[in-house]
Amino acid sequence: MPTSNPQAHPLKIVLSYDGTEFHGWQVQPGLATVQGTLAKAIQWITGETVLPQGSGRTDAGVHAEGQVASFALTTPIPARNLLDALNRRLPPSIRALSLQEVEADFHARRSARGKTYEYRIHTAALCPPTLARYVHDCPWKLSMEDMQRAAEAVLGEHDFTSFAACDPDRQQRMLDAAETFAEDRIRGNVRSIGESRWERRGDLLVYTVRGNGFLHHMVRNLVGTFIDVGRGAIRAEAVESILAARDRSAAGPTAPAQGLFLTHVEY
Amino acid sequence: MPTSNPQAHPLKIVLSYDGTEFHGWQVQPGLATVQGTLAKAIQWITGETVLPQGSGRTDAGVHAEGQVASFALTTPIPARNLLDALNRRLPPSIRALSLQEVEADFHARRSARGKTYEYRIHTAALCPPTLARYVHDCPWKLSMEDMQRAAEAVLGEHDFTSFAACDPDRQQRMLDAAETFAEDRIRGNVRSIGESRWERRGDLLVYTVRGNGFLHHMVRNLVGTFIDVGRGAIRAEAVESILAARDRSAAGPTAPAQGLFLTHVEY
Repeated sequence: MPTSNPQAHPLKIVLSYDGTEFHGWQVQPGLATVQGTLAKAIQWITGETVLPQGSGRTDAGVHAEGQVASFALTTPIPARNLLDALNRRLPPSIRALSLQEVEADFHARRSARGKTYEYRIHTAALCPPTLARYVHDCPWKLSMEDMQRAAEAVLGEHDFTSFAACDPDRQQRMLDAAETFAEDRIRGNVRSIGESRWERRGDLLVYTVRGNGFLHHMVRNLVGTFIDVGRGAIRAEAVESILAARDRSAAGPTAPAQGLFLTHVEY
Repeated sequence: MPTSNPQAHPLKIVLSYDGTEFHGWQVQPGLATVQGTLAKAIQWITGETVLPQGSGRTDAGVHAEGQVASFALTTPIPARNLLDALNRRLPPSIRALSLQEVEADFHARRSARGKTYEYRIHTAALCPPTLARYVHDCPWKLSMEDMQRAAEAVLGEHDFTSFAACDPDRQQRMLDAAETFAEDRIRGNVRSIGESRWERRGDLLVYTVRGNGFLHHMVRNLVGTFIDVGRGAIRAEAVESILAARDRSAAGPTAPAQGLFLTHVEY
């Protein structure tokens, strides 16, 4: 643990990455991951073996413009020099945006107070190849007005069980999530959403969501449901009853990973 | 040949592609190429085996926003339907922008009257991961004014031997080039450049060059030389003597493929 070594100075790093060719954030033996690639670069530069703790996992194919990780080093290398060295060593698909010394009790996951994600949908007839990895090229004509009404229905505090992944390692992820934030703020699948809106940016429809925490696949399941609303498969008013059902099968499909960006983590 | 079958109707297709994961335009056994991927998609849709002829080859890693190819089909499928079917069948890294029936004597390479390329250099401190595949992330501070003066020096008709690739299959490529345009317009390594300019677009420095033909690696060798000028390694006035030398070793290095886009072909 970073705080166990009194000589180590704790650091906070902010990262941008193209998740397409990584098997997600979390280190996995024999697979390219963001966490593993970052750890290797730190080791190559400093000789120290550390495992940077992210603010949370991002799944395979999910991108970041503001992922945060924490780690501690004993090497007395100035933060500015380490930042430059990391950007020389890391592949172009990962950039270190900033690096700073922090208090000993800072932990990228446990200290996080909230996160912001963006989901980007391409709506014009032909998606340019240079954009194809970073958007969901959606085949349907979508009503942004209906999607906006659906998005507003999840504002505030709700039990998001209907939008949580039903996957084999869910139990473990729920334990991880419980560890993420102070228990008095979050219990079970209840999360608080402070911002939830759609906007048009050129040929893109962009969903921005800010909350005090997110369940596994929650943003992608919300977006999949909003797309169902936008294409007219379900009504915007249905979101309320989907939330009330507390049942994954009540909501829409999981939107593809490639449209999702973790854009900001609050501390 | 397209014109050898009187039942076949000749077609002109305009393509956009991300060249990163292709081994260039030209079909090669066992390797993913743009020409090969397009041929397979046409065969899957129509059952016909054709080899679309491009306006020219693009090298591995070079992108296109307006590559043109010609082929002929006997299947009486309307152009609009074939276009839609192609965009469903092709990978997201290749998009068919338009498809139209053309005169029997149209040939994407032989009928071309000129081409336009763009070369995109990223100049800010950190290159965003989502842009990294589509620009040359240049580490030097560049003087656009000096690069612009150098770019103007290649306007008009010149022998571009100093900017032509010295590679093993050069002889073959020169034969290809001789075949490309009517012989009375182009002899040897003489080409005519009608537009050659740098402009700033946000964090990018973009070079646009339009000419009646280009030798292998010519745009990348021009840009490599202009970068040498921009970072102060050579003076803008040196371009004139580099041209006069007719010797590849007189010019600068070959700029990386990933910054180059074939943007337009004139007929």
